[in-house]
Amino acid sequence: MNGADLLCDTLLAHDVDVCFANPGTSEMHFVAALDAKPRMRCVLGLFEGVVTAAADGYARMADKPAATLLHTGPGLANSLANMHNARRARTPMINVVGDHASYHLQHDAPLTSDIESLAKPMSNWVRRIINAETIDEDAAAAWRAAVSLPGVATLILPGDMAWGEVTPRTIRRVERPKLPAIDARAVQAAATALRSGKRAALLLGDHALRAEPLSVADAIAQTTNARVMSSTSNARAERGRGRASFARVPYAVDVAVEALRDVDVMIMVGATVPVAFFAYPGKPGRVVRNDCELITLAEPGQDLAAALEWLADEVGALRKVQLRPAPDADALTGTVPSGPLTADAIARVVMQRVPENAILCDEAVTSGTFHNYAHLAAPHDMLALTGGAIGVGLPLATGAAVACPDRKVIGLQADGSGMYTLQALWTQARERLDVISIIFSNRAYAILQGEMRNVGVKEFGRNAERMLAFDDPALDWVSLARGMGVEGARVTTADELAKVLDGALRQRGPFLIEAVMP
Amino acid sequence: MNGADLLCDTLLAHDVDVCFANPGTSEMHFVAALDAKPRMRCVLGLFEGVVTAAADGYARMADKPAATLLHTGPGLANSLANMHNARRARTPMINVVGDHASYHLQHDAPLTSDIESLAKPMSNWVRRIINAETIDEDAAAAWRAAVSLPGVATLILPGDMAWGEVTPRTIRRVERPKLPAIDARAVQAAATALRSGKRAALLLGDHALRAEPLSVADAIAQTTNARVMSSTSNARAERGRGRASFARVPYAVDVAVEALRDVDVMIMVGATVPVAFFAYPGKPGRVVRNDCELITLAEPGQDLAAALEWLADEVGALRKVQLRPAPDADALTGTVPSGPLTADAIARVVMQRVPENAILCDEAVTSGTFHNYAHLAAPHDMLALTGGAIGVGLPLATGAAVACPDRKVIGLQADGSGMYTLQALWTQARERLDVISIIFSNRAYAILQGEMRNVGVKEFGRNAERMLAFDDPALDWVSLARGMGVEGARVTTADELAKVLDGALRQRGPFLIEAVMP
Repeated sequence: MNGADLLCDTLLAHDVDVCFANPGTSEMHFVAALDAKPRMRCVLGLFEGVVTAAADGYARMADKPAATLLHTGPGLANSLANMHNARRARTPMINVVGDHASYHLQHDAPLTSDIESLAKPMSNWVRRIINAETIDEDAAAAWRAAVSLPGVATLILPGDMAWGEVTPRTIRRVERPKLPAIDARAVQAAATALRSGKRAALLLGDHALRAEPLSVADAIAQTTNARVMSSTSNARAERGRGRASFARVPYAVDVAVEALRDVDVMIMVGATVPVAFFAYPGKPGRVVRNDCELITLAEPGQDLAAALEWLADEVGALRKVQLRPAPDADALTGTVPSGPLTADAIARVVMQRVPENAILCDEAVTSGTFHNYAHLAAPHDMLALTGGAIGVGLPLATGAAVACPDRKVIGLQADGSGMYTLQALWTQARERLDVISIIFSNRAYAILQGEMRNVGVKEFGRNAERMLAFDDPALDWVSLARGMGVEGARVTTADELAKVLDGALRQRGPFLIEAVMP
Repeated sequence: MNGADLLCDTLLAHDVDVCFANPGTSEMHFVAALDAKPRMRCVLGLFEGVVTAAADGYARMADKPAATLLHTGPGLANSLANMHNARRARTPMINVVGDHASYHLQHDAPLTSDIESLAKPMSNWVRRIINAETIDEDAAAAWRAAVSLPGVATLILPGDMAWGEVTPRTIRRVERPKLPAIDARAVQAAATALRSGKRAALLLGDHALRAEPLSVADAIAQTTNARVMSSTSNARAERGRGRASFARVPYAVDVAVEALRDVDVMIMVGATVPVAFFAYPGKPGRVVRNDCELITLAEPGQDLAAALEWLADEVGALRKVQLRPAPDADALTGTVPSGPLTADAIARVVMQRVPENAILCDEAVTSGTFHNYAHLAAPHDMLALTGGAIGVGLPLATGAAVACPDRKVIGLQADGSGMYTLQALWTQARERLDVISIIFSNRAYAILQGEMRNVGVKEFGRNAERMLAFDDPALDWVSLARGMGVEGARVTTADELAKVLDGALRQRGPFLIEAVMP
């Protein structure tokens, strides 16, 4: 038995049985160890950005971490943008990063780099293994860190630690740490605020957006005349008909400020104070009013459902309140959209057709108006881009499909972002995953074109044109998909989209729809 | 005038007039500044790994740095693997990484990360701009660092530094630093060693592999009965008929040790002591003999040509010696290869057809036997993967073609590595670059399959199969290319390859050939 076997056994003992991987030479002993353990499911990504986003999507749906396998500093580097998104999503994840044998680092061989420096910004926990004999302790500590934060744990595995012989042993499974207790004073403060007559908002994030706690939050809000809102981008929200509706804090600073202008007190449940995504000259950083009272009921990693239950008791909220009728209840019924594929037409066509229990992965960016209809669609999970690092969508859907093979996954994907990690389509084909990817083909970084106008540039010159649009040549997503073994079709009207999407929903397996926008 | 204008003007004043870019919101003022300066050529990459490798390929051929434009920590992260390769190639490069406005960092907005921690491992020089008024000094310092090491300089540009108003001024161009002087004692030591009767090798790297210094090295070697060798992977080597031939230090440890067994003294000229790419149990780290005498004649960043001239004088080498006839002079003439596309057949077909003055970008990995024929082909430049971070080839060729629009560029590309940064094909199409990409389609990480066997795993189980091969489904590179606006063709025999390559060589513009290997 060597260190790699011990690492693999320890992961399995903690029920980590999926490994998204892109290995290299320094990881061969770990690959051999994985190969000897068929209980571990190894899923190859043809690029490391696919690996970490897939592990993120998997964990958001499985509520347990996957492992990743990455090759030295550069392999880790390729994975970092989506590791950043996972960290912002508070996704449990255990990265195994292979490195040179410890005694080889002195030679500064070509692939040598400072792995710790690279790992730390995007990890909540980093450790280098320095003794093969105690790899079980290291791996258990990584698991504990990943599930207790929850967050990203990165374990650096030098070659000689992987191949070093160790004493065979029975793996001791460490306990899942207790969730940090809810603070009674926070509950009292929130209850007092809700009873005060001030205009209050419950700002939900993290696990508070699962159906059960959400319904408790809605009951509190109905009882106390508060509002339910969510953070702008959330790891996973359970939405759809029969579930409480909520508004997200808008992305655009001015709109967010306006939306929060009448909030006197904000009670945060697994969420942080809403801030502007970017700074703009003369605009505020926080989008709540300066005099808005801020109360943290509970933080991510605490039992948010219990905190809401407690608060509901305090304010005497009935548990089984009727959902308030949506003012726009008819928006998805009645006329079927037709004509050009505007963002709204796409959203209506798609949200009309979301199958019960589907998983939606939203990286639609400027084309994303799905949230306007989420409360009217069939019940579904919505997974979003949490860290702003584009390129999460296609692999996020891939990982979600690995976690939930019996649920339809629909990727809502902006084209510019999709190009970052298009290799994920190949993994969808390889693993026969039931994913429909809808590409919003506007052939531009439309968000940046808007920001450029905000900067005051009304007429784009050649350089701006060439950095903000990619219509020359136009990407042909159907060919890109075919190149990776995924069937696809291009549509240019809402009617075509409806027809093709209906067909794709009837079959299983990966399918890509390129929705060409006007 | 704002800080972004000042930065842009300073780059232009130092003759940095190409910017490979993938901007985001925090860089909009810099994009506006670039837009106002048509002398700056902005080249969009649809992924940041494309951006830095293209800047690398550009600088290797232009002998001056390009700028890159990257978006916050995640955008930088995506670019790091190829920045690592550039650092290992000692390529001059100036990265401009946008960040939040300095006063916005306190809010920990979603895209916030520790950019310095990410940048340092892959940069030779890092600075954060903290005063818009002195951005010209910062940019000039970045340029000076990039060209003097030479190496990777990373400048972090917070939003408020970009949009901050500054006093208009005339840009002061700083001087290119003097090259560090050659050490007379090193020259004497090398000359003494060469005259000693010991078996000596001149190990060339960096600029010593340009045609002129190479011919001087060959003259020294012929006069003193020494060998000329090069490092395993080199940023740029001028090769082909009429130029001195040399052997590279082999990649595989055992083969390298064998190749260097009879070297008593190694004289390094722009190269470092050859080491094993990876550690293996029981195998050495350095591949020279333990008692091999090591002499550094000159280091990268010094005037290597002058050092070789000086050494040639010391040992009385004639400058215009006849090249030694190649023992395999007929290997590329005579029979045209036919039949299955083995690595050797591909190499012979391609090297027979290399046009005069072509640029070859080698990321062929296990399919790369081109070097066996490089001395017999028409004169060409060979650019290689220097840092071992796969995914450099397609964008490296892209950047080389931007630098040298009148030269044919041929990418020799392994399929697994090519998938890392396939987005580069789109930039080739967008910029109408004259690049032929030949994809070696063996549908596996063949190098890892070999390493796995070395580890002792003879029969691969399901997990090893699924991590080391990607034949299910097979990638269809012609569709992938078409998806990005690049014409292509698939070939399965040497005869077909010859025919399709001949056709591609007659036309201009990007073309991709998928060479399906048996």
